This record gives sequence, structure tokens and C-alpha cells, in this order.
Amino acid sequence: VRRSPASVRGTIARAPITLLTDFGYRDHYAGVIKGVIASIAPAATIIDITHGVPAQSITAGALALREAARFFPARTVFLAVVDPGVGTARLPIAVETRIGARFVGPDNGLLSLAIAEAGFKRAVELRAARYRLSPVSATFHGRDIFAPAAAWLWRGARLSALGPALKAIAQLELAGPIARGRKLEGTVIYVDHYGNLVTNIDRESLARLAASFPGRGLSVRIDSGPPIRIVNAYGEARRGAPLATFGSFEFLEIAVRDGSAAERFGAREGTGVSVAADG
Amino acid sequence: VRRSPASVRGTIARAPITLLTDFGYRDHYAGVIKGVIASIAPAATIIDITHGVPAQSITAGALALREAARFFPARTVFLAVVDPGVGTARLPIAVETRIGARFVGPDNGLLSLAIAEAGFKRAVELRAARYRLSPVSATFHGRDIFAPAAAWLWRGARLSALGPALKAIAQLELAGPIARGRKLEGTVIYVDHYGNLVTNIDRESLARLAASFPGRGLSVRIDSGPPIRIVNAYGEARRGAPLATFGSFEFLEIAVRDGSAAERFGAREGTGVSVAADG
Amino acid sequence: VRRSPASVRGTIARAPITLLTDFGYRDHYAGVIKGVIASIAPAATIIDITHGVPAQSITAGALALREAARFFPARTVFLAVVDPGVGTARLPIAVETRIGARFVGPDNGLLSLAIAEAGFKRAVELRAARYRLSPVSATFHGRDIFAPAAAWLWRGARLSALGPALKAIAQLELAGPIARGRKLEGTVIYVDHYGNLVTNIDRESLARLAASFPGRGLSVRIDSGPPIRIVNAYGEARRGAPLATFGSFEFLEIAVRDGSAAERFGAREGTGVSVAADG
Repeated sequence: VRRSPASVRGTIARAPITLLTDFGYRDHYAGVIKGVIASIAPAATIIDITHGVPAQSITAGALALREAARFFPARTVFLAVVDPGVGTARLPIAVETRIGARFVGPDNGLLSLAIAEAGFKRAVELRAARYRLSPVSATFHGRDIFAPAAAWLWRGARLSALGPALKAIAQLELAGPIARGRKLEGTVIYVDHYGNLVTNIDRESLARLAASFPGRGLSVRIDSGPPIRIVNAYGEARRGAPLATFGSFEFLEIAVRDGSAAERFGAREGTGVSVAADG
Repeated sequence: VRRSPASVRGTIARAPITLLTDFGYRDHYAGVIKGVIASIAPAATIIDITHGVPAQSITAGALALREAARFFPARTVFLAVVDPGVGTARLPIAVETRIGARFVGPDNGLLSLAIAEAGFKRAVELRAARYRLSPVSATFHGRDIFAPAAAWLWRGARLSALGPALKAIAQLELAGPIARGRKLEGTVIYVDHYGNLVTNIDRESLARLAASFPGRGLSVRIDSGPPIRIVNAYGEARRGAPLATFGSFEFLEIAVRDGSAAERFGAREGTGVSVAADG
Repeated sequence: VRRSPASVRGTIARAPITLLTDFGYRDHYAGVIKGVIASIAPAATIIDITHGVPAQSITAGALALREAARFFPARTVFLAVVDPGVGTARLPIAVETRIGARFVGPDNGLLSLAIAEAGFKRAVELRAARYRLSPVSATFHGRDIFAPAAAWLWRGARLSALGPALKAIAQLELAGPIARGRKLEGTVIYVDHYGNLVTNIDRESLARLAASFPGRGLSVRIDSGPPIRIVNAYGEARRGAPLATFGSFEFLEIAVRDGSAAERFGAREGTGVSVAADG
């Protein structure tokens, strides 16, 4: 939790309930979630992180949740729903972390990156009828199970009251880049609103490569395209020029200054990106 | 009001003001509405249900409002604007329901489905100059008439202070499915963010069909396409397979597991959907 | 500040912090901003004006901010980020206006139209480390500089504590229409969600043209297209017919009743629009 301004905590206002889903903005589904919360916990502040996670993309949701959660107050209740398996065997869960945050959502890996960062403490399966709407539908657990659980936790319900303990939760494995000779081979794991390409190449892996080939320059390439320069800020590139930089995800990102790298390079999630020490 | 958790009402926090419009997310129009409300009722919690109702689609807005409203606290003030007739003869109205909810918007049917469910009590035309901004524009009644009315109602203004009483409000007629021999003929009335096709086929009509042809299976068809199975949960279908199920609208919906039914079948609002007892 | 209902100010609830950005709705970036604010000023109400400003369009953002700001309570803190120059020499600033509003964002003209309307009082460069997150990234000043500044100002920090005073801020010049004989030549400066074309033709310029050619009718044209009638309300045009009217921006707008003028005329920002006194 790198930079959360913990020093200012302790004021009397309560931490919020936040929402992160792939519901989109066309329908009333996110509004329904808020209605259920407002009925159970009318004093809670509800904050939308985003409802624009690409439909059913657990990886994108898990990354967004981790990147946002670290900036919220310690005792925030995070409700997250990206749930392609609704109505199947995957469990509905709530998790408490070491810093006091609570996470509520499906046990499909969506919550796992944020929880790993905050520190797992305990988890339960959301099974207690008293903390669900009734009847529970087969298609909208966000409304019937997750929203009531988040609202009751915010009101002070104990995690253990919501259902039986779970020893572990599903983990999302984010594959790292692969070192191969003087090359680091990664992929695009997220494309944002501006068309920036977020890769799975982290600072440490890049530092190891640089240390192994001291004095050499490093070149970033999308597939086998032309080399792209690593810079510290967008402003170091000319308008319209591509650049690579460590962005807000703390991963190497490829951008085009005042443009869209996704459009320029026809890249998307899964596209290969490599960094090579110059020969 | 099927499942609204009324048992937890009575806390001291106030019910919110909610917004549902077709303003979209590009412009500042929804923000302006919030500014007017924050100026008149700064202590009110403002909740976005959605601003993504398809532009000028009164039916989609009315359905979304009904589906969301039932989950909010009883005394919520619902502001809704889908208003293709702004600046024409349609009246601006406010309505109080039997459970204490207030609805504010244009009298074009948009509010009628939610009000029918909550129980109509009384209605007024929003005519009192004191509860409008001045001057009232011809193009933005959401800002000049509806937002001030909602904020003043939230602050405790009496409905009757806002303008003269109306005996009735415009009703939106949602045509039901038509029974024809061993077939029930309906249509798609809403397409959601996931490409799910919501039809006008309700549980009762389907139960009547099933009762008339005991022991027969039922097949759902889009236009004259292949039969689609009715299931209880998405999880009962294979990934990529189509299915029909009763979704959160309490109408039969056609979905594709982990995909978009709208794309798969080229379907949209108005597309025919039938259910037939097997021969 | 034409119609802000100032008469109802003075209640004890605090003015909100508002957000206006081009972050879009896909990512968690706006959520991160809210997390930083909730950590520093947990009692503050956060209101989204919009995150849908066209990417990196300072003019669109400046217009939207001005049009929204005038309807918010006097002491609102407005956080605005449309920042193609993040990481370059442009300064991060905070500005106080005569009515007590505070504006926080990049010094690239984005804030200038709203500030001109509210009345410039003083400005500072956001340089004090105490009111920033640490370290400050090169790519996300919204999170690291602007959000903390807005939250601290809301909590009561003095503007002068945030950094050294600036004598002036960058001004956005909105070119007005050009009068040429019996013609007024303008352009489309904004296209909204409905496809309405907002021009830079204001009431005054139009009144001057009308006064110079008394008794003549006025015709609006997109490029050299057919004449479009100026009306007072959408309702005066037939469904599907084009019309010109003064909309919520107080500029002449071209719309198609129950349709999209942008689609009908293939128009966009920069398209020419003229008004001519009939010959």
C-alpha cells in the first residue's frame, strides 16, 4: 500500500462502500445495487469505482480493483462483481484483510489481487439467509447476495455471521514476463480508455535485464515492430510519437503521445511485447 | 414490492434523491442536475441509477425505473428524465405514492410503471414559479423544473405547493404476449449491456400455456430460428450456448452463456420471440 | 451566474467536491481520485459532473465546466482534469474565485472559462509536498497532485499553503463568430450525446445582425446546406426535421427533432455554420 495517505485517517466520517462491476452504464443494474445498499445502510456513502470493466473480464476487474483499493480508507467495504459464473458452483464470498478492509464478491479470482496486497485475514461463504434478499435469483447475485452483505458489513455485522469460514479463496495468476537471453517477453494485459497498452512487465524484471547487460540501451517492441523508447513522462515524446513508460499500474505501458497506441499498433489484450538489451 | 428489505427502515438517515435519464455520460447535463439539487438541498444524497437509457426511449426508461425503484427506501425521491417532447404540451409532473415515494419527471408514461407498482396516491403539475429556476428554458426542463422540484420535495415541501392537482397521469401500455393455439407470441422489449434479450413474456402467461398442454416440453424461438431451452441459471448452458431464463425483470430473457444474444441472433427491440408447446 | 438559486444557501451541509475529467468510464482512474479524496476528506460529498469529456479536448472540458459550475453551491471545490500535457512544463494550479469557489487542475485553459464567470481572485502553483501524494508520478497528476489539493482545500487548508502565488492563469480563447456583410460565420464547437451541434454563435451577435437588417428573416446553414429555421423549442419542429435554437450553453444549437443532427449532416467540431439575413 504504497502511498495511501494513512496519516489523515481517524476522522469521524465512516469509510465508504465502493462498487466495481462490469454492469456497464446502459442499464439500471448498478442502480439496483445502490438501492439495496441504501435500504439497508442508508447512512453509507456509496462510491462508484467503475462499472466499465470489460464484460466478464476477471483479469481486468482484478487489476482495476487492486489499483483503486490501495487509495481508499483502510476500513472501506469493496463490492466487486464480474461474474460470468453466476448461478454455477463458484461461491459468493466476503473477505476481511489485515488493514480492516472488507471485500465482497464472487470467488473467481476477482478479489484476489487486491486482497493479496492488503493482507488476507479471514474469509466466509455468504450463506446466511438473514443477510441475503429472498428469494435469491439465479441471475443477479450482485443484488440478492453481494449488496446486502456489503451493506450489513458496513453496518457492523461480523464477518462470521454471514456464513461458514473458508480456508482459502481462488487466486488469479498473473503470468509475469519471461526472460530469454537478452530479451524479456511479455504481453499486453489491459488496454485503457486512452488506448494505452498496459503490459505484464514490471520494474524488477526490467532492472534484472538491465543489470545483466550493463551499459546497453533497452528497446521495447510490439510483436516484431520498430523499437520504442522508454521515457519517464509522456512529455518527453513528440506529439504523435510512441513511447514506453511505467504508468499508474506500476507496469510498463506503451502509449502514443496525444493519441491511441491500441489504434496505432492494432494491439489488444494478449498482444506480445518484448524488451531487448541492444546488441 | 417483492423484496425490498423494509424491515431495516427507520434509521435516521434520509432516503436519497435518485437520477435516471437518457442524458448519456459524454456531457455535463447530469452534473448540472446535481448542481441544482446540491444548491437547494445540500444535505441530500444523490444516487445515479443510470444516465444510459437509450436516447428518447420512454419504454426502456420506464422499465428500468420500475425495476430499480422497488429496491430503494420507501421515501426516496425519484427524478427521471427521458423527454423527447421537452418544450411541447406534455406536462411536467410530481407524483406521490402510497408508500411515500415521490416521482418527478415528464408526464409521458416514463414514470407510470414504477408508480403503478408503488401505488398512485396524488399528482400535481409543476407550475409554481417559486419551485422552478427562472427563466425556464425551452430545452432543459431537467435543470429548470424537475431538479428544483425533486430537491424541494426532499427538503419537505408539500406536493400540493408545487402546482395544481392532476386527476391522472399518462400511462405506458406494455403489450403482453399473445396466446395463439399452442403458441405464445411475444417480442423483445429491451436489450441490455450484455446483449441479453428481455421479452414481454411473463411467468403467468407461460404457466397458462404449460397448464393447457400438460406433459409437453416448451421451446423458445427467436423469429423462426432453432429451439432454445428454458433453464433456471446461466450455468446450466454450455459456454457459448443460447438459453432462455427468467431474469431480473421477471420476464423471459434470452442469453448466450459468456456471450451476446443480441449479436448472435441479430436481434433488437421489436424482434419476435415465441414459446411453443412441443407437438 | 444567471440562475444559481443562491437564496437557499446558508444551510449547514457543506458544498461538495465535484469531478470533471476525460478519464472515461472504462477504467478505475476516476475511482482512484475518489479514493484519495475519501482518505483525506472522508466527510466530503463527491459529485461526478462527467468523466466523458472527449479525450484530451480542453475546449470541450472548459465549456462543460463553465456550464455546470454556475449551478453548484458557491463554495464548491471543482476538480477538473483534461491534461494532454501531464508530465510537461504546464503547471498544476488551484484558483479561488470571488464567490468562494475553488478550482483545481492543470493550467492549460481548462479552468479559465468557469473562473472568468465566477470572478478570478487568486491562484497558486500546487508545489507544497505536504499536500501531494509521494512520490508524484509523471503520468497521473489527477491522483498525486489534484485530488489531494482538492480534498485539503475542502478540509479548510488555505490556498496560499499549497504553493507560491501565480499572477495569472492560462486563458482559453473561444473565437466568436465573424460578421461579414449580411452574414455571421461561426463553427461547431461541441457535439453532444444527442448529436446536437453547439456553435460559437451567441445571442448578442445574432441580435446585432438582426438589428442591421431589420424586417428580414434569418437563415441558418451548415456549410452551404439548405436553410434551417430558428425556433424557440424543439416542439416547434416536425419530428425528424432540423431546427436551430439557443440551447443550454446559451449558444445557437442545431438539432434534429427526435434525431441526431451530427449524423444527419455529417457535422462535427469545426464544421462551418452561418446565419444570413434573407436577401
